[in-house]
Amino acid sequence: MSHKSAVYPGSFDPITFGHMDIIERGLEVFDEIIIAVACNSVKNSLFSIAERIDLIGEIYRDDPRVRVDTFDGLLVNYVVSQGSRVILRGLRAVSDFEYEFQIAQMNYNLKSEVETLFMMTSVPYGYLSSSIVKEVACLQAPVETLVPPPVQKALNEKFKKD
Amino acid sequence: MSHKSAVYPGSFDPITFGHMDIIERGLEVFDEIIIAVACNSVKNSLFSIAERIDLIGEIYRDDPRVRVDTFDGLLVNYVVSQGSRVILRGLRAVSDFEYEFQIAQMNYNLKSEVETLFMMTSVPYGYLSSSIVKEVACLQAPVETLVPPPVQKALNEKFKKD
Amino acid sequence: MSHKSAVYPGSFDPITFGHMDIIERGLEVFDEIIIAVACNSVKNSLFSIAERIDLIGEIYRDDPRVRVDTFDGLLVNYVVSQGSRVILRGLRAVSDFEYEFQIAQMNYNLKSEVETLFMMTSVPYGYLSSSIVKEVACLQAPVETLVPPPVQKALNEKFKKD
Amino acid sequence: MSHKSAVYPGSFDPITFGHMDIIERGLEVFDEIIIAVACNSVKNSLFSIAERIDLIGEIYRDDPRVRVDTFDGLLVNYVVSQGSRVILRGLRAVSDFEYEFQIAQMNYNLKSEVETLFMMTSVPYGYLSSSIVKEVACLQAPVETLVPPPVQKALNEKFKKD
Amino acid sequence: MSHKSAVYPGSFDPITFGHMDIIERGLEVFDEIIIAVACNSVKNSLFSIAERIDLIGEIYRDDPRVRVDTFDGLLVNYVVSQGSRVILRGLRAVSDFEYEFQIAQMNYNLKSEVETLFMMTSVPYGYLSSSIVKEVACLQAPVETLVPPPVQKALNEKFKKD
Amino acid sequence: MSHKSAVYPGSFDPITFGHMDIIERGLEVFDEIIIAVACNSVKNSLFSIAERIDLIGEIYRDDPRVRVDTFDGLLVNYVVSQGSRVILRGLRAVSDFEYEFQIAQMNYNLKSEVETLFMMTSVPYGYLSSSIVKEVACLQAPVETLVPPPVQKALNEKFKKD
Repeated sequence: MSHKSAVYPGSFDPITFGHMDIIERGLEVFDEIIIAVACNSVKNSLFSIAERIDLIGEIYRDDPRVRVDTFDGLLVNYVVSQGSRVILRGLRAVSDFEYEFQIAQMNYNLKSEVETLFMMTSVPYGYLSSSIVKEVACLQAPVETLVPPPVQKALNEKFKKD
Repeated sequence: MSHKSAVYPGSFDPITFGHMDIIERGLEVFDEIIIAVACNSVKNSLFSIAERIDLIGEIYRDDPRVRVDTFDGLLVNYVVSQGSRVILRGLRAVSDFEYEFQIAQMNYNLKSEVETLFMMTSVPYGYLSSSIVKEVACLQAPVETLVPPPVQKALNEKFKKD
Repeated sequence: MSHKSAVYPGSFDPITFGHMDIIERGLEVFDEIIIAVACNSVKNSLFSIAERIDLIGEIYRDDPRVRVDTFDGLLVNYVVSQGSRVILRGLRAVSDFEYEFQIAQMNYNLKSEVETLFMMTSVPYGYLSSSIVKEVACLQAPVETLVPPPVQKALNEKFKKD
Repeated sequence: MSHKSAVYPGSFDPITFGHMDIIERGLEVFDEIIIAVACNSVKNSLFSIAERIDLIGEIYRDDPRVRVDTFDGLLVNYVVSQGSRVILRGLRAVSDFEYEFQIAQMNYNLKSEVETLFMMTSVPYGYLSSSIVKEVACLQAPVETLVPPPVQKALNEKFKKD
Repeated sequence: MSHKSAVYPGSFDPITFGHMDIIERGLEVFDEIIIAVACNSVKNSLFSIAERIDLIGEIYRDDPRVRVDTFDGLLVNYVVSQGSRVILRGLRAVSDFEYEFQIAQMNYNLKSEVETLFMMTSVPYGYLSSSIVKEVACLQAPVETLVPPPVQKALNEKFKKD
Repeated sequence: MSHKSAVYPGSFDPITFGHMDIIERGLEVFDEIIIAVACNSVKNSLFSIAERIDLIGEIYRDDPRVRVDTFDGLLVNYVVSQGSRVILRGLRAVSDFEYEFQIAQMNYNLKSEVETLFMMTSVPYGYLSSSIVKEVACLQAPVETLVPPPVQKALNEKFKKD
């Protein structure tokens, strides 16, 4: 049990300071965090999978403990394929809790050797979500306190008025 | 980051199959679990701290990865004193969630280098708590599906009719 | 399956219009409702078991479909002893829901042939509880919209100023 | 009040072991369960109404106490048209609770003689939903523990790779 | 601080007795309520912005303390542009609570001098929403207890069968 | 409607930065805030009513818009006796929400001309409560980020080791 990695799955459309808080704190516990961008998402996305991976890659360019990847198919199979046994998820609110609970139980049912560990999102990011970031950016309001500079730039380009 | 331990704090009055599920699954992720019986609890307890430690010790006698201890004062200080940085907690329900969230935020406020990680209690133990075990035992109903043999025996002695 | 009865357990300290709403609507579904006053309650009570039974008996004196009784020991055993297979419970709010869920699962674990059925409390009684009735009565405020006349009278006597 | 039937409405797209658990336990309380497939659903469905009815019919072919039907218009009107006064619903989680509460209140407002009764979903099916079954099947993962054989077969056909 | 106005934002598609309850009770606290119909809503609407404004205007024609308006862009900017500092919102249920909490925190982050104040929806309207009104009207069921006459008339026209 | 006051009731045992956040933001909306220390509280208190009032008085000594008082009997009667029509309450979490909802409905039932308005507690104080402050102080841990200097001093005196 020398090296421990955790997979942090999500849509990351786009990555926010809330996600980055979980990643940073996860690195206090795990040797490596694999950010796994889900590509079978049915949600309408603003950024393509490639754009999301590029943004995350730019942010963590200098941190060898963070790797970004994409997956399709069952998450638990992906986790095992990466030599990991841990799914890391952030919890913000009660509604998160119920959804996450349902998914965690299903994943346990599908492959019981993979564990899901949860961290509470830090207080200043409890209200933050990719959706709310996109709404704010769409209304031309500032997003500096919500997302890091590469994402700010990308959002400005997506929503710039001609 | 070779050896990773987690502290699993609680009242354990008494330990149940629900606690043991979290411990067993925690051992898939951590090299060592320190079961930390809180001794500053204000709740009316059925078992003394010594009795609770003895019961836990008996159950995990043959597993060197599980250690049982007691603490008073701030939990985060205890965690650091044990060379750990992780508090492990089980989540069963929404009401758990809110209380745990409040405690986790306070602990983060007191010592930000200690992280709290949560696991969802396995489905068959979602309704289980030490309180409900004591209620059932008090009514002379069977507790075999709720607690391991040493605790069954101890409960029978506490609630036996003369 | 000709005659169907349901057991409606609780503290009933005292019975309120909220309980009576569940009983009345339960009689649309079941042939008989057995109001079962729990006598192993640990809560500090205002009315004795005998007083609670007398108040309920007075209210339903003329309705042969409603019977009042008391029980100790396991509720599921009591239900079976009465030739019933159904526990009837009212749900008011999310906090009710979680507690009731835990109890229903434990009861199912103890005796799976007894089912718990829930009804949502009618809108005007959603905020009503025996505790809040006692608080209001203790402050000498009117309780006419909360409890029926026999309970009003009994509350006035308990809280009258000398 | 000799014969008592209950209407169990839903989308059943497709029926799962979670639904079947409610039906089986409902039959302990009611003489007949009418499974009512809602045809005014706005959700994107995988199975047509006819396919859903066929699957349910196949599962309960040998149980005369279970009938499958479809309805449009107001559910409460359908319930009365079937000579029933009871809507049966399963509750899994807090989010269910709030939605179900809203619907139950509206139905009571529309026709107060129809009662909605709730059962808590059994522990092993608490995380199960038709949506999650479809997601799992879509990812070619096994669904044997989630749905009965006829539904497994139908899902395999819908999602088979050419 | 002589004149105090509050902005009551929403979709109002259409306005219901639940909204009108909040407005009426808000007028006990504020000198003026500005009903602000959000025009950047992504939801599929039944009524156009103009229709919604006309319906609200007709209902409050004789009350100079109620003004109806529309806005796009950030709500907090609109509030300030109207010389107000207060957003008024109704809370019905726990699911409301979490969403509203997230929005209120984001608005505070964007402009901290604007406060969001919440009122609990009155008991008889706790289950009411514009969505449920549209569903009921679509099924040709009566809506007299849910919306005022002008909205009843408008719903009948939208859903009349040819 | 020239002068608007709101009553902010509670135990304040002791007042925390969370309470002070609600008071400060309430003053953006109301001309006067009356802090009403409930004296019919059944909870075991650390500070006497007089001590609590003194601490609050010291903190707001220089702000004529804040007044501290105590009350017994029904809160709604007290509010009216002060010439106010508004009860101000902070909301932190879902469990708060349900309790507050129940109390607000009961107060509305008792005196419908008094309105309860809620503010969400600011993000950094979402986890803060008087109980948790007392627990932390009891364990001799620092409370500087939780309560203002006069309360820090008072807590130190209560919990100082001899």
